[in-house]
Amino acid sequence: MKEFELIQTYFSGRGPQRKDVVLGVGDDAALTRVPTDKLLVVATDTMVENTHFFPDASPRSIGHKCLAVNLSDFAAMGAEPAWASIALTLPSADEAWVKEFTDGLFEIADYYHVQIVGGDTTQGPLSVSVSLKGFISEEKVLLRSGAKVGDWIYVTGSLGDSALAVDSKLKGLELQEPHKSSIEEKFNFPAARLAAGQMLRHAATSAIDVSDGIVQDLQHILNASNVGAEIDVAKLPISVAVESSCDRLQAERYVLTGGEDYELLFTVPEEKKGYLEQNATAMGVNFTCIGQIKNGENKLVLVKEGEVYSFDDAPGYQHFSAA
Amino acid sequence: MKEFELIQTYFSGRGPQRKDVVLGVGDDAALTRVPTDKLLVVATDTMVENTHFFPDASPRSIGHKCLAVNLSDFAAMGAEPAWASIALTLPSADEAWVKEFTDGLFEIADYYHVQIVGGDTTQGPLSVSVSLKGFISEEKVLLRSGAKVGDWIYVTGSLGDSALAVDSKLKGLELQEPHKSSIEEKFNFPAARLAAGQMLRHAATSAIDVSDGIVQDLQHILNASNVGAEIDVAKLPISVAVESSCDRLQAERYVLTGGEDYELLFTVPEEKKGYLEQNATAMGVNFTCIGQIKNGENKLVLVKEGEVYSFDDAPGYQHFSAA
Repeated sequence: MKEFELIQTYFSGRGPQRKDVVLGVGDDAALTRVPTDKLLVVATDTMVENTHFFPDASPRSIGHKCLAVNLSDFAAMGAEPAWASIALTLPSADEAWVKEFTDGLFEIADYYHVQIVGGDTTQGPLSVSVSLKGFISEEKVLLRSGAKVGDWIYVTGSLGDSALAVDSKLKGLELQEPHKSSIEEKFNFPAARLAAGQMLRHAATSAIDVSDGIVQDLQHILNASNVGAEIDVAKLPISVAVESSCDRLQAERYVLTGGEDYELLFTVPEEKKGYLEQNATAMGVNFTCIGQIKNGENKLVLVKEGEVYSFDDAPGYQHFSAA
Repeated sequence: MKEFELIQTYFSGRGPQRKDVVLGVGDDAALTRVPTDKLLVVATDTMVENTHFFPDASPRSIGHKCLAVNLSDFAAMGAEPAWASIALTLPSADEAWVKEFTDGLFEIADYYHVQIVGGDTTQGPLSVSVSLKGFISEEKVLLRSGAKVGDWIYVTGSLGDSALAVDSKLKGLELQEPHKSSIEEKFNFPAARLAAGQMLRHAATSAIDVSDGIVQDLQHILNASNVGAEIDVAKLPISVAVESSCDRLQAERYVLTGGEDYELLFTVPEEKKGYLEQNATAMGVNFTCIGQIKNGENKLVLVKEGEVYSFDDAPGYQHFSAA
């Protein structure tokens, strides 16, 4: 099957057809309408075989995840996603692969009402790069740079599953059910916290999505906001599956430095704690206070049971760290 | 050098800083302002080593070309480029490579006043995917679908250089100077016909950029417009370098089926020929009439010296054609 047939069959006309799309797949570029009172939001994330997914990853998972990771960036800003372009590079025009990939892609695109408006299909080593577009009201953007001394540090959901999924795969660990299925599902089909992000625009002073582990992602907030922080390691919301599958110390390492949890890490001033608790609970979003923003030259201090937590691992997932 | 340092050093704060960019590189996503009376335009193109460029391609050329090919899509629509996201995948964090790549990228970004607002740096086989954003007035969009029976078919500039560059490289042909330098320059540092595209919004009924050869790209116009066409092969504007480096028949094949000329192929009604000639000449853009739109079920007929031109090659560059 040729490139144009592949695009025609598996991309054109599928998924949500939004009214703000003037021209979708099929011309030199796509045309869309941004609401006049909103800013355009653009996120880009690439997934490469052997770096972001294993060679035996299911195409459906890759299709899901390539959009999910960009949606997670939108969630961290409180932005509303609308349109995506997919740059797909494939070793060969494997129709069954493309079918499964697009099934995963359109499943999540449908759920979040995102229209695929264009892209590119190319021959080469397997990778997919998604550029997600959408909008946001200028006065309610959640940035990394708004954290203030005294703000409380929260994280949604529970953490560690993806790091354990990767580690068990690399080391050939045998995980027990039902935990095995649970962590694999979270690794292969992560959710994006879009509704929580929308709500947090009214409560949080800063936010980021946890893609590289708590230590590294919180550090981005500290650098952008020019503040320090203290985190209580004992309070980290480790997932039940992770707690049941390894010892506590290992679980903490997964949460602190493991990637791809795609939960939201955010800061909330004292006077907004009530708003947060009321609304997050009403939405069914779990959240946990894990520490507080402090003075201190962008420095992150970890404590546990009143003691400083010694921590000399590499700080989070680092592209090229082997180089 | 780590990913964040690479981005910081070679991407952040370089190139044009546009007033319509509210937030550039550095947060979860970029924020920009689309003019309220314009549509958003989005193009995406990927370049992969061994598919789109040779392993010995200069990083500066790759940096130039990854943006140029997207700018060419904008030219074909008459759109105005504004912001780009760069998804760069590299085998290792080679600082010298990144420096040269970004030098090429920002040179062309400066020229066309495009701000790099975000992206992603990833480890893996060398490739770069660019998502270019910009805007256009809704009433003046150039599409592939507007060609009418009787319209004249034109192409800007001259054709065939990139196809000869690729072929000579693959076959180890020895080209003579000054032609060798000329075709290599056109292959490695293609221009985008943005000013011509702007002008053509007022003259042309359809347009596309020539990325896959005249035959394949014109076919896209015929399919979208539901018309046929006749092209006179003798009128094709073959570049001097190509004509001087190979026989006429081979040169015609390069132009008809060779990729990456990045000239504009467009259709103009009889009554707009005067406007075209006046304005293109004033802008210093060369253009050639190569045929006419006809009735006939999306069929393209090639003629030469009054005879039907027999032509049984594969129609243009086709990703995955080997599969």
